[in-house]
Amino acid sequence: MKIHGQPHRAIEADHERRIARIVDQTVLPHEVAWRELETLEDAAEAIVAMRVRGAPLIGATAAFGMFFALREDASDAAMQHARAALHATRPTAVNLRWALDRVILAVASFAPENRAEAAWSEALAICEEDVRTNHAIGRHALELFRSLQAKKADPSAPLNIMTHCNAGWIACVDWGTAISPIYQAHDAGMKVHVWVSETRPRGQGASLTAWELREHGVPHTLIVDNNAGHLIQRGLVDLVIVGADRVTAQGDVANKIGTYLKALAAKEHDVPFYVAIPLSTIDWTMTDGVRDIPIEQRSAREVTHIPGLNAQGHREEVLIAPAGTPARNDGFDVTPARFVSALVTEHGAVEASAKALAGLRARV
Amino acid sequence: MKIHGQPHRAIEADHERRIARIVDQTVLPHEVAWRELETLEDAAEAIVAMRVRGAPLIGATAAFGMFFALREDASDAAMQHARAALHATRPTAVNLRWALDRVILAVASFAPENRAEAAWSEALAICEEDVRTNHAIGRHALELFRSLQAKKADPSAPLNIMTHCNAGWIACVDWGTAISPIYQAHDAGMKVHVWVSETRPRGQGASLTAWELREHGVPHTLIVDNNAGHLIQRGLVDLVIVGADRVTAQGDVANKIGTYLKALAAKEHDVPFYVAIPLSTIDWTMTDGVRDIPIEQRSAREVTHIPGLNAQGHREEVLIAPAGTPARNDGFDVTPARFVSALVTEHGAVEASAKALAGLRARV
Repeated sequence: MKIHGQPHRAIEADHERRIARIVDQTVLPHEVAWRELETLEDAAEAIVAMRVRGAPLIGATAAFGMFFALREDASDAAMQHARAALHATRPTAVNLRWALDRVILAVASFAPENRAEAAWSEALAICEEDVRTNHAIGRHALELFRSLQAKKADPSAPLNIMTHCNAGWIACVDWGTAISPIYQAHDAGMKVHVWVSETRPRGQGASLTAWELREHGVPHTLIVDNNAGHLIQRGLVDLVIVGADRVTAQGDVANKIGTYLKALAAKEHDVPFYVAIPLSTIDWTMTDGVRDIPIEQRSAREVTHIPGLNAQGHREEVLIAPAGTPARNDGFDVTPARFVSALVTEHGAVEASAKALAGLRARV
Repeated sequence: MKIHGQPHRAIEADHERRIARIVDQTVLPHEVAWRELETLEDAAEAIVAMRVRGAPLIGATAAFGMFFALREDASDAAMQHARAALHATRPTAVNLRWALDRVILAVASFAPENRAEAAWSEALAICEEDVRTNHAIGRHALELFRSLQAKKADPSAPLNIMTHCNAGWIACVDWGTAISPIYQAHDAGMKVHVWVSETRPRGQGASLTAWELREHGVPHTLIVDNNAGHLIQRGLVDLVIVGADRVTAQGDVANKIGTYLKALAAKEHDVPFYVAIPLSTIDWTMTDGVRDIPIEQRSAREVTHIPGLNAQGHREEVLIAPAGTPARNDGFDVTPARFVSALVTEHGAVEASAKALAGLRARV
């Protein structure tokens, strides 16, 4: 989508120089700094330092990392070394492993001298697929938006959409998942307004979603996470749409901590609650998400300290509690399927139920 | 309650010097700075600069302010001037006006030369009443705690209590409202553990409640507001208890933004949700709180900027969103009576319903 009015992707391939460029997300929203990735080490560092984040973008970055490695040394040993080095950057990231294995599968049958070029093509293909998938998710969700818009008492009023965390283009190669239909609605001339929830502790709503929407010109308003219930109660939210980290075979949704509170409020006030996901987010081996999805415990420091820009324009972190205060920091929560109005995938919207998901799986 | 192991009140009268001392809440939790109030101007400034906050504490501070004014000049004109000056510090604070009128009523019939002493006595009486009221609220809520403790699968495990914002002793003269039973339980040797919700935007949970509990030695864990639903879903919360800014005659509760989300989660998981209030918090002129309670709109800056202590130990404010991001900041939300398990007053716990509240009103 757009940065300073120009169309961009979160990772861009330079065909001539055979390098990749990323927006360094550690300095967003206060600065837009492009970084060039030219080596395996560059790609690994970008993932470890969280200059790139979001499962699809991490996968794409790792795929380019395989190309950089194979350009230097395309032997089987070097290939396995590169895979191990990239996999170690985020050992639990499913999408990262998937991307690495996909590149290896694509290049392994080639003679070493042709492997680098095959890896470059595969990295590009991974990017293009991500863009296509996310665009399709957005297209299907946009249909839901349109029918909600048509039902509004004043159909000329903007459609008020609430989101949580960042499921936008900067977490993917382009478009995003939950934010994809918002861009498509806006680009099609539909009036939309987005309630952006800060998303403590890491503030991805305030720092990334607000930045994305601002750069692309989509009307939005930042709120603290606490404000969500009040806005939904007062009829100021027409729908909630979020992404997900994992969805079980019965439609339970693990997503950024705080998602469940929004789902509770949406249910209480009959506001649709949509979850936008590529089909690859579904973990078919799990059913009961509350029982079985492991919840990552993150550092207390994310709760007690907040980074931002000080009055002098420097990035700084401030302590907001008594020094040494104990804190608990669950990375995710699980929203049971009964709170989810629909799962919106690249193959269309589907009910969040074991039956409907099994049907979708059989169909595609 | 305790600071550095010593018992204190949030406002302390020095009988010998006829001055009052307050803890400057603008520098908490990073520094405990006592300030002496000796003049009308000192008292007014403490309220305006939010060195004191919380309805009861503001009222008590204003009462001492009247004494300081009358000590200088006890004429009718001076008394009215002092009342106007103190009232202007927070024109919408009901408790502030009540305290001022109470002092005036207590002193007006005296000859000017005796008015100052009468005001001093009345200020002390206001403080003592607040302490008694809050202690009684805590005593009644403690009974509820004990019966929940007895029902726990493992009665030797700590009772897990979740609170929101700061309804502690530092918002009152002593004890607090929602936190009063927690201190009483802890002091009585009952095992309690408190989930302290940060309470964005102003962070009163992180900065004040966490500080209070730490100083008094009560086990607690800080969480981001987003974490509340997950903990309640996982059975890690035995009860939620909060204060209130206003309760209607049918039991609807206006309290700090975010309270409603906790009430929704508590209801979904059958966790008791208590609201601790002095009877004076009930606005008998209102019934439907969602319809009628005005919701204060606060500044966008509280959403986009966060104050804290930087690495050098200096207080600083950091920007957490793109500069100029529009933000909405509702100060309060309204939790309908059906989500409230009980209102706990100084006269005992009562059902949050028009009938039960009318009965209580008739009884006392």
